[in-house]
Amino acid sequence: MRDAAENGQLALLLEVTGTPKPGNVDRHRDYEDLRFEHFVTGAVGALGGLRAAADGEPIGDAFERAVEGMSDQSGGNTQFGALLVTVPLVRAAAADRLTPDGVTAVLEGTTVADACSFYRAFEHVDVAVDDPPEGLGSLDVRRGGSAADTLRERGLTLYDVMELSADRDGVAAEWVSGFERSFEAAEWLLSDEGPIYRRTSRAFLRLLAAEPDTFVATRNGQATAEEATRRARAVLDGAVDAESLAEELVARDINPGTTADLTAGALYIALEGGLEV
Amino acid sequence: MRDAAENGQLALLLEVTGTPKPGNVDRHRDYEDLRFEHFVTGAVGALGGLRAAADGEPIGDAFERAVEGMSDQSGGNTQFGALLVTVPLVRAAAADRLTPDGVTAVLEGTTVADACSFYRAFEHVDVAVDDPPEGLGSLDVRRGGSAADTLRERGLTLYDVMELSADRDGVAAEWVSGFERSFEAAEWLLSDEGPIYRRTSRAFLRLLAAEPDTFVATRNGQATAEEATRRARAVLDGAVDAESLAEELVARDINPGTTADLTAGALYIALEGGLEV
Repeated sequence: MRDAAENGQLALLLEVTGTPKPGNVDRHRDYEDLRFEHFVTGAVGALGGLRAAADGEPIGDAFERAVEGMSDQSGGNTQFGALLVTVPLVRAAAADRLTPDGVTAVLEGTTVADACSFYRAFEHVDVAVDDPPEGLGSLDVRRGGSAADTLRERGLTLYDVMELSADRDGVAAEWVSGFERSFEAAEWLLSDEGPIYRRTSRAFLRLLAAEPDTFVATRNGQATAEEATRRARAVLDGAVDAESLAEELVARDINPGTTADLTAGALYIALEGGLEV
Repeated sequence: MRDAAENGQLALLLEVTGTPKPGNVDRHRDYEDLRFEHFVTGAVGALGGLRAAADGEPIGDAFERAVEGMSDQSGGNTQFGALLVTVPLVRAAAADRLTPDGVTAVLEGTTVADACSFYRAFEHVDVAVDDPPEGLGSLDVRRGGSAADTLRERGLTLYDVMELSADRDGVAAEWVSGFERSFEAAEWLLSDEGPIYRRTSRAFLRLLAAEPDTFVATRNGQATAEEATRRARAVLDGAVDAESLAEELVARDINPGTTADLTAGALYIALEGGLEV
């Protein structure tokens, strides 16, 4: 039987295997410099950090270690966001509390030291992020570990940091909502039928159809993010072919990465809930 | 940095990712009941056994544990042969002796207890095997752990067992030749260029073109195994399209699984030798 950490690794692998996931690297599609094999290698490297989370080490340390391990490949950022979703889920599952309340207890228990580790994690890999809001320049994640003084002065925990970004980052929004969307999509995966890689595709499309992807908003603008969501809805309505949309979004470099991160969270919850591969 | 066991897991994942690998499950092809996602899940489950090998536990125990972990998915046998290749390689690498001589020392050091564990591993998963040679019925691997008395009476180590099968099983042949083909194919991978999943495809085709696959010989007969090898040569000569051959062999259920096992071994040696993903 797989343990909580191994299911975390499997969730990362099943996420990238799911196809079609329009705009994302998947089993059938690569970007030229960011390929399926980089995600696979990232998942191998991330296990140590996921195990640290299961073993009760501080969430920030576990996350930083997972990101460092993930980064041992040449593709760049493969699963930073997916790990920010799965690390607290693994902790909750290892404590036998994988519920919205149980995960929220994990998140609310984070400390200033966890926030410092989170910032240090950005030193391991180049992550596309927005400029911070006016007046929060000293908390720009691109400052890495050098933001530690500010975090300590203000007494900001990792949960506090996520709260500050929740209105413009879908993973942060998940943190402050008890992983609402991940838990919902896990139910879709469990009640769906057929191969997991197809269920994963459908869950991804439903998540994208429900809300614009914040990673697309950051990289391509809000209008493009809303367009991607409209097109995902059209796929669910049968008006657009998912494979064609996948080709088009990859060609236009429109990558709904946050939706993929939540899909990884959903897969994790589903695996812990008995999803049979 | 990945350790010896993590590179073993990565080799399993990169092997199944390589495409086209005619007749095998790969990134682009499934059999109906044996899918890419089963291999991915098998690789997650196998890590514990690979780590046991790296940590110096008996080869037979490590192998049995890897197979048991691998079997925690519904597709059946995904990586039995690949683990029989990678487990001793992981042990040799962990001891800093990943050379033909170093691996051979590992193999020649196996015991009767290792042989018993190897037989028990067959109880975890259904593996397609030939009937044993005349007079060796009591050593039929399908007897599982109940062959232990015979193994002990005859004082057969795991290496001895492999020697008995080396003329009709490509993995056993690899054991008694110092992993000659795996080491050679690792050089192909390292000197090749481009994405790993394409290098893997080319290495697989060269291995298949060089020798008929013994798993195909077992399941489909020697003539079919020789045909598959001729067709692989035709691909290398440019006379046959690899993707078409891949479609055809999957449709005919001709699965050169032993060649895939050696490809996993080659990937492992190449990763340990500095192959960058």
